[in-house]
Amino acid sequence: MDAHQPAEPNVPVWYIGHHLPTPNVGINIGTLEEEISNGYDMITTYITNANFRARIEQATSGAHADNKAHLYIPSLDAEEVNIHPGEHIPQVIAFTSSWIDLDSEDPLFAHVSRQVLAHELEYAAFCGVSTVVIEGPKRKTNVAQYAQIIHTTLLKGSYTQIHVHLPMTEEEGVATNNGEIYDEFSMWDVWNTIRTVCKYNARLSLALRIPAVLPSRHLVNRWFAEPIRTLLIPSSTFCPNPKGYPTFSTAHQGLLTRYMKLRPVPYILISDTHVEPTPVVAAGSGSRSKPRYEPLGYLVYLRHLQKNQPPQSTVERFGAGYQDYLQAPLQPLADNLESITYEVFEKDPVKYDQYEKAIKAALDVRDPNETIIVAVTGAGRGPLVSRALRASKSANRSIKLIAVEKNPNAYVHLLRHNRDTWAGQVTVVKSDMRSWNPPFKVDIIVSELLGSFGDNELSPECLDGVQRVLNPNGGISIPASYSAHYTPIMAPKIHADILSRRSDPDAPETPYVVMLQAIESLAENEYIHRAWDFHHPLPANTMSEAAALGGGFIGLGDGGNDHNIRKSKATFKIPRRGVVHGLAGYFESVLFGDVELSTRPDTIDAKSKDMISWFPIFFPLKTPVQLPDDSEVDVTIWRETSERKVWYEWSVEAFTKGSRGQRFRVGVTELHSSKKNGCLM
Amino acid sequence: MDAHQPAEPNVPVWYIGHHLPTPNVGINIGTLEEEISNGYDMITTYITNANFRARIEQATSGAHADNKAHLYIPSLDAEEVNIHPGEHIPQVIAFTSSWIDLDSEDPLFAHVSRQVLAHELEYAAFCGVSTVVIEGPKRKTNVAQYAQIIHTTLLKGSYTQIHVHLPMTEEEGVATNNGEIYDEFSMWDVWNTIRTVCKYNARLSLALRIPAVLPSRHLVNRWFAEPIRTLLIPSSTFCPNPKGYPTFSTAHQGLLTRYMKLRPVPYILISDTHVEPTPVVAAGSGSRSKPRYEPLGYLVYLRHLQKNQPPQSTVERFGAGYQDYLQAPLQPLADNLESITYEVFEKDPVKYDQYEKAIKAALDVRDPNETIIVAVTGAGRGPLVSRALRASKSANRSIKLIAVEKNPNAYVHLLRHNRDTWAGQVTVVKSDMRSWNPPFKVDIIVSELLGSFGDNELSPECLDGVQRVLNPNGGISIPASYSAHYTPIMAPKIHADILSRRSDPDAPETPYVVMLQAIESLAENEYIHRAWDFHHPLPANTMSEAAALGGGFIGLGDGGNDHNIRKSKATFKIPRRGVVHGLAGYFESVLFGDVELSTRPDTIDAKSKDMISWFPIFFPLKTPVQLPDDSEVDVTIWRETSERKVWYEWSVEAFTKGSRGQRFRVGVTELHSSKKNGCLM
Repeated sequence: MDAHQPAEPNVPVWYIGHHLPTPNVGINIGTLEEEISNGYDMITTYITNANFRARIEQATSGAHADNKAHLYIPSLDAEEVNIHPGEHIPQVIAFTSSWIDLDSEDPLFAHVSRQVLAHELEYAAFCGVSTVVIEGPKRKTNVAQYAQIIHTTLLKGSYTQIHVHLPMTEEEGVATNNGEIYDEFSMWDVWNTIRTVCKYNARLSLALRIPAVLPSRHLVNRWFAEPIRTLLIPSSTFCPNPKGYPTFSTAHQGLLTRYMKLRPVPYILISDTHVEPTPVVAAGSGSRSKPRYEPLGYLVYLRHLQKNQPPQSTVERFGAGYQDYLQAPLQPLADNLESITYEVFEKDPVKYDQYEKAIKAALDVRDPNETIIVAVTGAGRGPLVSRALRASKSANRSIKLIAVEKNPNAYVHLLRHNRDTWAGQVTVVKSDMRSWNPPFKVDIIVSELLGSFGDNELSPECLDGVQRVLNPNGGISIPASYSAHYTPIMAPKIHADILSRRSDPDAPETPYVVMLQAIESLAENEYIHRAWDFHHPLPANTMSEAAALGGGFIGLGDGGNDHNIRKSKATFKIPRRGVVHGLAGYFESVLFGDVELSTRPDTIDAKSKDMISWFPIFFPLKTPVQLPDDSEVDVTIWRETSERKVWYEWSVEAFTKGSRGQRFRVGVTELHSSKKNGCLM
Repeated sequence: MDAHQPAEPNVPVWYIGHHLPTPNVGINIGTLEEEISNGYDMITTYITNANFRARIEQATSGAHADNKAHLYIPSLDAEEVNIHPGEHIPQVIAFTSSWIDLDSEDPLFAHVSRQVLAHELEYAAFCGVSTVVIEGPKRKTNVAQYAQIIHTTLLKGSYTQIHVHLPMTEEEGVATNNGEIYDEFSMWDVWNTIRTVCKYNARLSLALRIPAVLPSRHLVNRWFAEPIRTLLIPSSTFCPNPKGYPTFSTAHQGLLTRYMKLRPVPYILISDTHVEPTPVVAAGSGSRSKPRYEPLGYLVYLRHLQKNQPPQSTVERFGAGYQDYLQAPLQPLADNLESITYEVFEKDPVKYDQYEKAIKAALDVRDPNETIIVAVTGAGRGPLVSRALRASKSANRSIKLIAVEKNPNAYVHLLRHNRDTWAGQVTVVKSDMRSWNPPFKVDIIVSELLGSFGDNELSPECLDGVQRVLNPNGGISIPASYSAHYTPIMAPKIHADILSRRSDPDAPETPYVVMLQAIESLAENEYIHRAWDFHHPLPANTMSEAAALGGGFIGLGDGGNDHNIRKSKATFKIPRRGVVHGLAGYFESVLFGDVELSTRPDTIDAKSKDMISWFPIFFPLKTPVQLPDDSEVDVTIWRETSERKVWYEWSVEAFTKGSRGQRFRVGVTELHSSKKNGCLM
């Protein structure tokens, strides 16, 4: 299938197919070869032809005349099909008949349609076709009936991918009842209903038709979160450039660039290439050159776009392959990390620069005449040690540097590093920082214990544990503080993934680390709420009380870690209907002074652009919550702690306004708790 | 606990306790014995006393003064508790401190309250107390916080029953925000949120406080569906009779009678018996006698009510013990029924009378000079055979009577019955009715194959199969027709039961036979929708087409049973917010002429009063759907068939009206299918 795919590494792979012009052309290897020679990667065909349709129409009108309520449709005949098994099949996308009307209000024709669909799909599967496109429902009022048939269809096959063909908006699509109000999100609503009825089946996805006039950015974003596997691009979507050749508007170019970032990459199908062009000319733009559209002009233009896609960002390059892939958060305290894990983290082009700046800034405020004692606690393979050494040089300060590390394997590495690279300037100590007991006080403690939600890898508990050794007079912790942030999102792809993990009952109560891609932020202006903060060092009285409860050890004993309990509640305004599948979580941290880190999409560029060390965290919901237009979501989230563990609990409530203006609840989830998968101290 | 319970079989068991007047009385076996001698069954106590409260208040104000965010509360002291282990404990209901404020907006006091609750519950559990009443949330705006703590509490103990104490309406209860609109259902909403967050935990139930002025009948019905385990009845609920003794209004009597039908039977706790009475006098009723309320007067009156409860109805007597108990529907075709099962069905006082009337009416329209051939197909132990004989006598018609039965054990019984009781008048045939092949045609076929949803035990398929033997000229089937009916209901108790069956993945997709009790019909005017009908005999052309597809056998072969496929969609108006947990299903049947059967609550009394043979059917929803006020529910349900099975599929959508008057979807379930548990042909 890769004949037309680029050799250049920076050009993305786009599979472009030709949606053949008439529904009645039998195809074979010759058809495919001709289209490949034209530059296409794939072809499409309807599974059956006009003979079949004629048979069905005749039988149906006979049954109507006899006033029958049902009609048995025998299976296909040799003269009724467009495809046969053959070597071209892997590059064929099959379409079921467009005249099938699964949601018909005529019970007889609905019954007939259902049988026709079954015959077509069974025959396509027999031929080895892996992707079948089925027309979406013909009306908005009978979606459950349509969805029930798709559900049955999905249960029958175990192989065929089903793409439901829908327009982005109802404008050009599904019939509406008379007098009904135009509703931009209605086609999305239809899709949401179908896939919910079908239990987010992994073999059910979208063939989305791109319109000549694009809908609002909100709707474009909404579809982006959905499993688009095919983009249908009719020739009417193109407009002529000054020379009259078919091109895309800037908006269409942007949409295509965006949607082609989805993984798996959607197929592109160009349709109506032989239709006389009637390009849409934007109002006021005047008439441009006369269109000079050749059937192949559309393909040529899309190949041109493919070669001229904007380069990937640092984060895109780093995250390739990780989009929407769920990972359990690290347990750095309970497990010893492997070298490769450290290596991945050390590649970050931004994080360690920020740390070096912060260490220098902290050294700058110290007395230039004293020797400053600096400890890197949890030194790993030593990246912060190197940066501390560089910072002391650039700040022109004398430091005594200690590297504390509990992982015995990393300790060996640090010793060698000290001998070979750091010229023995570093004191390497093998110890859990919480039990390290040096005969002096440390002026600056540097650590990198933050997780995707800030405190989720037990940074507060570790830094509390090491605070004993910090100089009580002006001792500094880098980071000085950090905060957790969250917002409700739609994430159907992730939800489907979690649903598929039925054998693991904890799957829907685990916070995952995940590079969020096919998601939509539901809150007005994509608002993200700051949940809570942690500051280091702790006030002396908090420390002494916690230590008293723990018999001298912070975090142990009843209530000894209660100062690290947190709770946050926030209300999010939701302007447009949608479905909450979970919460996206981020963090911000002040390392020192004005040196900060952020993973929040709205502040990362200002605070730590191109930082790649952390993907967001995702708190799933067992059962998604459906939201009406102009609703509100209340999220409550808790950071809980026992003597051995830290975990989160979360619940979501949905509200709307009643006719008397009262706020009333329209949905509430059960309590989710990650206690079973909590982070061990 | 049964000292004061009735010896008479018709008097119900009511456990009445005394909610002791002050929160600061330590109790022991003497306290209990005194109250038992007064006529009570139980006593209550607060777990801790004023000493404990004083300690907590002092510590809290100290922490507030120090501006602390958290405060560790050590556990209880000997001088701080009201209970100790002892033989009185089984008759003690413990209350946690009413000043605990779990949903406090002061984080410190919320944190303190949570610890206080944990200490009290742990101590009560240590003492062996099995039921603890906890005050509901103090405000409507922070319910998730309250619920999260209850959730944690439920996870800790595995034995204690927790009753959340709530008023029926917000009028006298939870603090509301200033200017908020009065909302009759808000306390129910609070409860619904708590139990949803707590995953319908079986150990979480309600201690409902009865107000002096009862709310609307709708709210009384709503609470009836919930797990009320304690009724708190303050002395202010009583009003004086002409002699000045405390009594209940008619409405209060009705409420008590209704709620005391719940299973398990709620405890009654009388409170404020030593408070000076200020009875509510209905407006316009004028002043009655001066109240002469003694502390024991309330108890005396409730014992009087207990002894004078109205007698149970036939259905209540028959269904005792079966309330909300889920049973899988029978598989009479696949399994052979046991004698005891037949015996239960034969006890019905109404069903067989109706059958006899129908047979007589069918005989009446036949030519009096011919011998009428009557077959009872699926004769079981013969109740319809006896009725056919009686009908022939009263109609004064000569009949030839055949009893066809496939169950070899029932066949033996029929043979004996024919010899001993029917004087050999009956021809007994051992055969599945679908393969019975007599050398004559039958004039009247009588069968009793209906299930709780009419067609769910394959009556259509069986009667199609035997239609071959029916006289094509005016042959009669009794029943002549039947129809399936459904309506959306709230059924939290049943939902909790299904949730507890986690090990069975099919549990939420099984239609259950169940005597519905703790449910609420959600549709406006409790509307029930007629889904579909079956008529017998089938038209000749339907028969011949189906037989052609099945190679001569009805119901076999592709499409051979398609005429028994059904689909129904209905929209239900929902005036008051609620939660749909599933669909209640009923049936109606025309046996012959105007002789009918019905299980619909709104038509059973007119058509077949006191008929007990069928409980309703319940189609569950995996995930309940939350409904706003003035919403609509669309239900779609399918009767599906393959060559071997019949099953149902169902889905529910919820809609509301948007600000522009448009109807929009606020919820949709996945498709439910009983295919795995379908009824085998």
